[in-house]
Amino acid sequence: MPFALSLPSDFDTRLHAFQAQEIPNLIADLEQLVRIPSISKLPEHAGDCLKVLECVSELTQKLGFQTEIVKTPGLPVFIGWLETDPNAPWITIYNHMDVQPAEEPQWESAPFEPLLKDDRLYGRGSTDDKGPALTTLYAIAFLKRVGYALPNIQLIYETEEENGSGHFGWFLDHMGSRLKTPRSILVSDTIFEGEHPALTYRLRGLLQAEAELVSGSMDQHSGLVGGVVENPLNILIRALATCTDAQGNVTIPGVSAPVLNAEEQAALEKTAEVFDIQRLHQDTAGARFYSEDPREIIERIWCRPTFEVHGFEGIQTTPKVIKSALPYHVKAKLTLRLMAEQDPNQVLQALEKHLQSCHPAIQVNDRGQLRGCKTALDALPMQVAAAACKFGFGKAPLIVGSGGTIGALPQFQRVFPQAPLVLIAQSLMSDHYHGPNENFRLSQIHDGMRTMAAYLYGLTKV
Amino acid sequence: MPFALSLPSDFDTRLHAFQAQEIPNLIADLEQLVRIPSISKLPEHAGDCLKVLECVSELTQKLGFQTEIVKTPGLPVFIGWLETDPNAPWITIYNHMDVQPAEEPQWESAPFEPLLKDDRLYGRGSTDDKGPALTTLYAIAFLKRVGYALPNIQLIYETEEENGSGHFGWFLDHMGSRLKTPRSILVSDTIFEGEHPALTYRLRGLLQAEAELVSGSMDQHSGLVGGVVENPLNILIRALATCTDAQGNVTIPGVSAPVLNAEEQAALEKTAEVFDIQRLHQDTAGARFYSEDPREIIERIWCRPTFEVHGFEGIQTTPKVIKSALPYHVKAKLTLRLMAEQDPNQVLQALEKHLQSCHPAIQVNDRGQLRGCKTALDALPMQVAAAACKFGFGKAPLIVGSGGTIGALPQFQRVFPQAPLVLIAQSLMSDHYHGPNENFRLSQIHDGMRTMAAYLYGLTKV
Repeated sequence: MPFALSLPSDFDTRLHAFQAQEIPNLIADLEQLVRIPSISKLPEHAGDCLKVLECVSELTQKLGFQTEIVKTPGLPVFIGWLETDPNAPWITIYNHMDVQPAEEPQWESAPFEPLLKDDRLYGRGSTDDKGPALTTLYAIAFLKRVGYALPNIQLIYETEEENGSGHFGWFLDHMGSRLKTPRSILVSDTIFEGEHPALTYRLRGLLQAEAELVSGSMDQHSGLVGGVVENPLNILIRALATCTDAQGNVTIPGVSAPVLNAEEQAALEKTAEVFDIQRLHQDTAGARFYSEDPREIIERIWCRPTFEVHGFEGIQTTPKVIKSALPYHVKAKLTLRLMAEQDPNQVLQALEKHLQSCHPAIQVNDRGQLRGCKTALDALPMQVAAAACKFGFGKAPLIVGSGGTIGALPQFQRVFPQAPLVLIAQSLMSDHYHGPNENFRLSQIHDGMRTMAAYLYGLTKV
Repeated sequence: MPFALSLPSDFDTRLHAFQAQEIPNLIADLEQLVRIPSISKLPEHAGDCLKVLECVSELTQKLGFQTEIVKTPGLPVFIGWLETDPNAPWITIYNHMDVQPAEEPQWESAPFEPLLKDDRLYGRGSTDDKGPALTTLYAIAFLKRVGYALPNIQLIYETEEENGSGHFGWFLDHMGSRLKTPRSILVSDTIFEGEHPALTYRLRGLLQAEAELVSGSMDQHSGLVGGVVENPLNILIRALATCTDAQGNVTIPGVSAPVLNAEEQAALEKTAEVFDIQRLHQDTAGARFYSEDPREIIERIWCRPTFEVHGFEGIQTTPKVIKSALPYHVKAKLTLRLMAEQDPNQVLQALEKHLQSCHPAIQVNDRGQLRGCKTALDALPMQVAAAACKFGFGKAPLIVGSGGTIGALPQFQRVFPQAPLVLIAQSLMSDHYHGPNENFRLSQIHDGMRTMAAYLYGLTKV
C-alpha cells in the first residue's frame, strides 16, 4: 500500500509562480558556486573548498539557517540548522561542494566559467553536486516563503566527497551532541537510470587488501633450482584463482551475495525492462561482459560482491623482457566490492582464512574498508520520495542500486543507524558526471526543485 | 659392461713430467686470458671479445692448429683445426672465451688482474671457462709432444655464451660444409657435484612466453561495472593457476616429465646418496622447497619441466596504492624449463591450447626457445669420459643432470644430431662460478688436464 502524497490544492500553482521568479536567481547562485574551483583532490585548491562553503553560508543565512564551517584534519564541512518547530522532527540533507578535477582536453568551454547554452548550464560541479544542492535549498525557500509545513532541517555539505570523504566520520564524531538526530537523511548525488528518475536504495561497500607471500630472502635462478624452490608468484596465483569462478562470482567461503526479498526482486525486474545494454557496452569501450542478460547485469552491479585483482608488487614488469629469476616476495593488490549486509572486517578475515587454506604462509593486509549502505524499501521516507518523484518529474521512479560508494553514507549509518538514507537522483546520464562538459539541464533544475519541495513537504505528513 | 681404458704403461709418468714443466706456462697463459675483460653482456667490451680470440689463435697456432676468427652478426667465434691423421675421425671441443660482468663489491682482488694465492688462481673467467679450455689444450699438447694417438680436433670457442649464445646457430649454419662432422663433442663448462667429478648428461631447455588477454580498449571502474565486465587479470590468473599443481608440478596436458630408464634412475640414486641438501638450503637463502627428499629434489632439477610466472604487464604496481580501476590489457611473463625429449614449439602450442581452453581470448606469444640436451648414458664417449675421470680425478664420476642450459648445445644437436655431447666438469662449487672471487684451483688444473689427456687418448681406442 504505497504512501499517498496529499499536497495542498494551490501547491502546484504557487510552485510554478515561485519558479518563474526564482530560477534565474538559482542559476546566478549556481554560476557563483561553479566559479569556485573547489577541487578536493588538488591540495592547492584547499582555499577554494573553504571559499565555496563561505559562499554557501551566505546563501543559507539569507534563508534563515544558523551556520557553521567546521575545520577537520582534512577539508572543512559546512553545517546549517533551520528549526521551524521545536517539537517537529529533524531531517538531515547531505550534499558536497567539492568537485572533480577538470583537466580533460575535451572541454568545449572553460570548466570554471559557467556557460548557459542550449538549456544547460555547463561547468565543473554543475550537476555533481552544486546544482542538486541548490534546487533543494530553493525548494526549502519555496516552502518557507509560502508558509507550507517543512521539517526542521540540518544541512551538511562536505568538501572531501570526491577524494574519499576521509574525515567525514571524524566530523560526525567531533560534532557529537551538537548534531541533531535526524529521522531520515536526504542525499542528492546520484543519477537517473536512462530517462527514468531513480531512488538508489543500495550502494556497495569496498574492501582494499593485499595478499602477500614470501619465500626466502632473495630471488632464485629458475635454471639452478626451478621446480624445487617454491615460486611465491605461482602459489599466490593459484590461491587467488580460487576466489572467483569462471563467471566472475566470488567463491570465498563466507562471502556470499545477499538473498533479495520480493520487493528488491521486483525493483530489479522493473529496471531490467528499461535497461539499455547497448549503452553500457558503449560506455565500457567494448569490454567483454560475464553476462548479456539485463536482469543479471543489474543484479551483479547492485547486489553481488566482487573480487578483483588489480596488480602485483615484487614481480617483473619490464615490457618484452623475461628474466629467469624467480621472485621471493610478492604482493597482490585486491579489492572486493561488498554488500551492506557484509561487514568488511569479517570479509577480510574470511579472505585471509581462505587464502591461508591454500597456503599457510600467505598474509592478508587491510588497506581500507568502507561498508555498503542499504535503505529498507518499505521505509516511509522512501515512499514519500517515490511519490515526490512522480509529482516532480512526472514519472514513478525506478528503485535502483549502485555498484559504487558514497564515502559519507556508511558514516551516517554508523552514527544514525535508525535514519533511512533517501537518495533522490536529479542528474541525467547525459550530464557528464566526472567527465568533460559537465552540465545541469534546466529541466532537471525545474523538476528537481518540484520533487524536493514535494518530498520535504511530504515528510511532515508521515 | 663399462669401457676399459687401457693407457700406455708410461702414460702416467710422462704426464707427470709434462705437467711439472708446463703447468707454470699454462698458468701464465691463463693469466694472459684473464687480463682481457671479455664481458659479452657489455657492448663496450666487444673489442675484448675479439682480442681474447686473437690471443687464443696465437696459443693454438703454436700447437699446430689452423685457425680462423669468424665474424657473426653478434660477437666473433674462434675455430681451429688440428688434423693428425686424414683417415681418423674428428671430434669437436667447445669452450667459451667470454665472461660474466664482475661488478660484485665482494671481490677481494681486481677481477681482471689474476692473483695466484693459496693454490688458486683468482680472476673473472678463471674457472668459467678459460681455465678448463687451457687444461684441455695442454692435454692436446701433451699427447702431441709424446706422440700418443689423438683424434683430429676441431676447436670452437665462442664469445656469447654468457649472453645466450644468440648467434651460435648462425655461426654453425654459416660455416656449412667447412665444419668437420665430429664423432662427439666435448664440453667442459660444468661443475663438480660437491667433491665428486661429474658428467652432465642432461640439460633442460627453456621456453619463454607471454600470455596476453585483452577486454575492450580502456580500463574500467570497478564501482560502476565491477562484476559485469571481465577483469582480464582475474581470468588470466585463473588460467595460469591450472598450469601447476600444489606441489609445483606442471599440469598442462601434453607437457609431461620424461620416463627415466634404469640407468638414469641409478644415476639419480647415486647422486642422491651424496647430495648436500643443507648446502642447497643455504644457497637459496631460506626459500621453501616443494620437497625435502634429496632424490626428488634432484629429479625435479634434472628431469622435470617447470612452469613459472615471473611477472605481468599492464597492471598496477605502485607500492601501497590500490586503485579501483580494472585493467583491460594484461600480459603474463612465463618461462618453462623443458626436457630434451620436449620440442619447445610443441610445448608452446600445448600451452596455448590449454590456456585457450580456459578462455578462448588468451593469446600466447613466443619470446624465445631453447631445446634441452641429453646424451645417451650408454654412448661410448660417455664411457670413455667416465674412465678418464677415474684416471684423472681419482674417482668415478657421478652422472648428473643440470636444470639450466648452455645455449650452444641445442645448436650442436641440431647440426650434428649423431654426435654425443660429453660434458666433463673441471670446476668446483667453491670456484665461485658467476660470483665474486671466481678462481680455478691448481689441483683442478692438474687433475683436469690428466682427465682430458686420458679422454682424448681413449677416444682413439673406440
